[in-house]
Amino acid sequence: MLYFENDYCEGAHPDILKRLLATNMEKLPGYGTDKYSDSAKEKIKKACNCPQAEIFFLVGGTQTNTVVISALLQRFQGVVAASVGHICVHEAGAIEYTGHKVLELPHTEGKISAQHLQEYLQTFDEDANHDHMVFPGMVCLTHPTEYGTLYTKKELSDIRAVCRQYEIPLYLDGARLGYGLASQSSDVTLTDIAALTDAFSIGGTKIGALCGEAVVFPKRSPAHFTTMIKQQGALLAKGRLTGIQFDTLFTDDLYLKISKNAIQTAARLKDALRAKGYRLYLDSPTNQIFVILEQTRMKTLSKSVTFSFWEKYDQTHTIVRFATSWATNMDDVDALIRLL
Amino acid sequence: MLYFENDYCEGAHPDILKRLLATNMEKLPGYGTDKYSDSAKEKIKKACNCPQAEIFFLVGGTQTNTVVISALLQRFQGVVAASVGHICVHEAGAIEYTGHKVLELPHTEGKISAQHLQEYLQTFDEDANHDHMVFPGMVCLTHPTEYGTLYTKKELSDIRAVCRQYEIPLYLDGARLGYGLASQSSDVTLTDIAALTDAFSIGGTKIGALCGEAVVFPKRSPAHFTTMIKQQGALLAKGRLTGIQFDTLFTDDLYLKISKNAIQTAARLKDALRAKGYRLYLDSPTNQIFVILEQTRMKTLSKSVTFSFWEKYDQTHTIVRFATSWATNMDDVDALIRLL
Amino acid sequence: MLYFENDYCEGAHPDILKRLLATNMEKLPGYGTDKYSDSAKEKIKKACNCPQAEIFFLVGGTQTNTVVISALLQRFQGVVAASVGHICVHEAGAIEYTGHKVLELPHTEGKISAQHLQEYLQTFDEDANHDHMVFPGMVCLTHPTEYGTLYTKKELSDIRAVCRQYEIPLYLDGARLGYGLASQSSDVTLTDIAALTDAFSIGGTKIGALCGEAVVFPKRSPAHFTTMIKQQGALLAKGRLTGIQFDTLFTDDLYLKISKNAIQTAARLKDALRAKGYRLYLDSPTNQIFVILEQTRMKTLSKSVTFSFWEKYDQTHTIVRFATSWATNMDDVDALIRLL
Amino acid sequence: MLYFENDYCEGAHPDILKRLLATNMEKLPGYGTDKYSDSAKEKIKKACNCPQAEIFFLVGGTQTNTVVISALLQRFQGVVAASVGHICVHEAGAIEYTGHKVLELPHTEGKISAQHLQEYLQTFDEDANHDHMVFPGMVCLTHPTEYGTLYTKKELSDIRAVCRQYEIPLYLDGARLGYGLASQSSDVTLTDIAALTDAFSIGGTKIGALCGEAVVFPKRSPAHFTTMIKQQGALLAKGRLTGIQFDTLFTDDLYLKISKNAIQTAARLKDALRAKGYRLYLDSPTNQIFVILEQTRMKTLSKSVTFSFWEKYDQTHTIVRFATSWATNMDDVDALIRLL
Repeated sequence: MLYFENDYCEGAHPDILKRLLATNMEKLPGYGTDKYSDSAKEKIKKACNCPQAEIFFLVGGTQTNTVVISALLQRFQGVVAASVGHICVHEAGAIEYTGHKVLELPHTEGKISAQHLQEYLQTFDEDANHDHMVFPGMVCLTHPTEYGTLYTKKELSDIRAVCRQYEIPLYLDGARLGYGLASQSSDVTLTDIAALTDAFSIGGTKIGALCGEAVVFPKRSPAHFTTMIKQQGALLAKGRLTGIQFDTLFTDDLYLKISKNAIQTAARLKDALRAKGYRLYLDSPTNQIFVILEQTRMKTLSKSVTFSFWEKYDQTHTIVRFATSWATNMDDVDALIRLL
Repeated sequence: MLYFENDYCEGAHPDILKRLLATNMEKLPGYGTDKYSDSAKEKIKKACNCPQAEIFFLVGGTQTNTVVISALLQRFQGVVAASVGHICVHEAGAIEYTGHKVLELPHTEGKISAQHLQEYLQTFDEDANHDHMVFPGMVCLTHPTEYGTLYTKKELSDIRAVCRQYEIPLYLDGARLGYGLASQSSDVTLTDIAALTDAFSIGGTKIGALCGEAVVFPKRSPAHFTTMIKQQGALLAKGRLTGIQFDTLFTDDLYLKISKNAIQTAARLKDALRAKGYRLYLDSPTNQIFVILEQTRMKTLSKSVTFSFWEKYDQTHTIVRFATSWATNMDDVDALIRLL
Repeated sequence: MLYFENDYCEGAHPDILKRLLATNMEKLPGYGTDKYSDSAKEKIKKACNCPQAEIFFLVGGTQTNTVVISALLQRFQGVVAASVGHICVHEAGAIEYTGHKVLELPHTEGKISAQHLQEYLQTFDEDANHDHMVFPGMVCLTHPTEYGTLYTKKELSDIRAVCRQYEIPLYLDGARLGYGLASQSSDVTLTDIAALTDAFSIGGTKIGALCGEAVVFPKRSPAHFTTMIKQQGALLAKGRLTGIQFDTLFTDDLYLKISKNAIQTAARLKDALRAKGYRLYLDSPTNQIFVILEQTRMKTLSKSVTFSFWEKYDQTHTIVRFATSWATNMDDVDALIRLL
Repeated sequence: MLYFENDYCEGAHPDILKRLLATNMEKLPGYGTDKYSDSAKEKIKKACNCPQAEIFFLVGGTQTNTVVISALLQRFQGVVAASVGHICVHEAGAIEYTGHKVLELPHTEGKISAQHLQEYLQTFDEDANHDHMVFPGMVCLTHPTEYGTLYTKKELSDIRAVCRQYEIPLYLDGARLGYGLASQSSDVTLTDIAALTDAFSIGGTKIGALCGEAVVFPKRSPAHFTTMIKQQGALLAKGRLTGIQFDTLFTDDLYLKISKNAIQTAARLKDALRAKGYRLYLDSPTNQIFVILEQTRMKTLSKSVTFSFWEKYDQTHTIVRFATSWATNMDDVDALIRLL
């Protein structure tokens, strides 16, 4: 069986396990105050070109979103996001559980636009009844989006400008950030993201780590952020686990290097799909490929390869997702291509 | 520097790292549905002598408490716990953040009594105004307690009987459960705990794992518990990480075997402290030793050994804690004894 | 100035004030346990033809929605409602503040359909990932809707059937229920509503009372509902205030009688608007009339009459709302008509 | 039957009902923006000698506490209060429902001391682990307390000084404030309270109103407080109801005048109790009298007079409470005295 169902089916990059092994019996203080967490933070700051950034390590993606968003919002505020955003659909109401509404914007291939955002915020401001409504208190983008698409630097800058105008912070959920940075189609760097956002995450779980997301506040972190992490049950006793992983990922550009493998394997697969006449649902430049499959074709394929059912396309077609990752073997891609 | 500050300063037991390495590139499904998580659950059921138990793996101790407690309570209920319980003091209000009050009972050396519990529940029941009060909806014990003490089987059974009478579930926070099971002073087995509680945790973080707590529901789990885990941002994408760790810990009794090391090293230290005329604050039968130190003595010691400041005893004395663990070296204990 | 801005601009029906005055110095027990509250409940049960109903009195509409919805939902569930529903837009995130998501359905003139509901629930059920999503735990209808429209008995029955099939309760927000019952276009009676829902409210604030909404559970109320009311700060010490008001409103059909005035005055206004060539935005059969006004016309009118700005229609037109109530004077309607 | 069970068993002061009647058919804007609410605010500002105060009207006491406290706290903070405070015991966990812990201090006759507060805050500050604890974010006093006792101006000033030192706001729950102000034993005026606190409430429900508490922020209100009131379902549509009541209560000193009746009737009763050899549980200078009754005596009395069971004193005695109010008739007091 070939496995293209998701980008978190393997363990960790071997270098990470080596480092965990090498440091295993060192006695280190807890809760992220160890030297490896410190070192990882320094390397990330350098990678972001942002020496004043404050950085924290959390365990998973939904956890990161709920902790960051509930820390940045005032209690009468909600978070603005694309209606297909992960926080809207697939986090089991984690944001609402902290008392906040997700304010949904329309999207194009997973992305919101500065114009829609501007209209939404202006309409809210001008609504004479807005004291009876949820205040938009921040914006959350996913980059790459749930459809694998990417914001351009221009699009991020425009959204940033609107956030500035309305004085609300911009947060970028980067659960798959490496795959965005490694895409040739992207003109956005880590430095850009640090310059354009008030908070963003650097996903480890889907890019080489056993677990772990780095949360970066390029300007300043919310006061008592550690206490809020603890309050949500998200503070890791052995902070070394995430510290060592991110220290490894940000040594010698490992994070970007291994991200490229996902892009290259996805590109090969995409080319082959096109060459064989398959219809792509959209043209994702990262590691997720969405294909419209005829249903009997889908059934046959599913006997020898795993992929994700995404949504019904029409009566006889289904949209499915093939995902590659840092660990995807080009041989497996070729084997899949032969099956197509 | 000798390190006796806590029981989570090392990484993982070497067998765990070996297993993580051996299985690293296997492609496994996410969210705890992998075969190693399944295998770990089977082994824990066997160890508990409880084939019908339902088991889940979470990442940390505070997370486990907040997820389990908020899943077991109705929204108008609170959780009864000893006033020194971890959930009362050192979880940054995680229980309250989920909307529930912690109803505090008096304690003796960290333990509540069946009698106090009975009085509390009866008083509540008889109070004509109790519709204006928080309903006691469950009981949470810590075992070993925050003072390293242990409930006897008789004490647990008595508390269990009161819970039955008032039809509220009993939850046992076992963040250090292995050290309780391994103590010679204890007459309580895993089978007893499974028989006497409605939910309990088996701590991995402090006993050999990089992270991870097993949550056991001996009878049945709350409906849609996985969704509630997700809702609190506590669902690990790579469930293999906790699955493999617990599978290793529950292979060939590793969990109990390594727990014994903490007990033996603590016992040696305790004997030496007594022999040298130190006053113990209380007689803990597990891996935490609480000593009353004169302050200049404390200062001198702190130059060559780390320990935890617990609380002020009087103007000239302080209570400090020495903790051993699965990883504590007997040579380090001897070195510490020479310093005393 | 003529006043058609809303249906809560006057105080109470004079009979209510008379009763408050007559009973004022009687010494009565608190928290809704007084004889007038009891009497009001009996009368409402009779009006609903539902002797086993359990009834509670709350103070306001948003309060009623947040208390009832958060009492009926499990913590991993959300409430399904029309995307223009009051709970979605104009309650400042009150539902989310209690930890629950509002799951929005498309609407037609404010109403959801059994078909859309069925599709939504079926899609959720069939989604293999639904454990990572918010479970639909109840349905909330507004009747009359925010656009003044009414569900037919057939529509309610169909929605009811879908709720039954998926075993989730149906709640009807009746903040303006009297105006729905009094409308000639309606084939829905209080008896129907009690038979077809699991909970509904009977609005007093907009129909003759100073404040107060009756919450009716036709089958059974959630356990410890009073405690949950208290927990949300919604339990009135002097329950007599709502009890006496509802006892008066449900004596000699006062509630329905005074509701009819709103319908008759609205009907006269609607006829006149049509006769004079105004375009109605939709044809509301209750006390709210939505008209598309050209902007200079709107400005002129606003000098002598108050109404609500609803939303922009196009560059030169605006949708405005005229509301009548139990207290609207037909002379005022005629004066308004002369201005049109 | 004589009625001394509580201070909210009658309706409203007749002047209030008269005003409600006189203004009943006036058309007024909603949500507290009417002219009577404005006028009431002006009168309260004058009574507090605090022209810059911001004032809001809420409906009930528990509602007021939960709305004000959750608006003043950051999400990682709790509220410090006496362990017998209403928010600790008799509000069904309303504070915890908003996500915040109540941090309990010991009390003397219902009052906390500046010294205990100082020790608590200092201990927290000095605790090296306090990032894992709930931050004390404000102090809540009840005045008069649940035992009818009063803070002196010196005590309030001392507590105020500690709050200043630790930069946390001071909130005074004045559900029975009038009875405190009217007591001859008190040296505290409304002006003092406005000068010494950051927020306080002026109870109407127990002092002449049908419902209603005024919330006063002497310096400034939390940003978007109205939205937070709405978010908790506490915004009254017909704000005139509370506005007119408070406007009446603060016209010609009515609030203080009627409060005095409660003090005078309580004083007569207290003197009689003492003269007849009854033991008072404590010496309350306000409208609540706590007496230690032998149980057969209690039973006999309860046949002809209502009072509140407070708590068991010993095997043969019970503490009961007699409450007077603005509406208590001196004849009833004399009748009660004859029964003693």
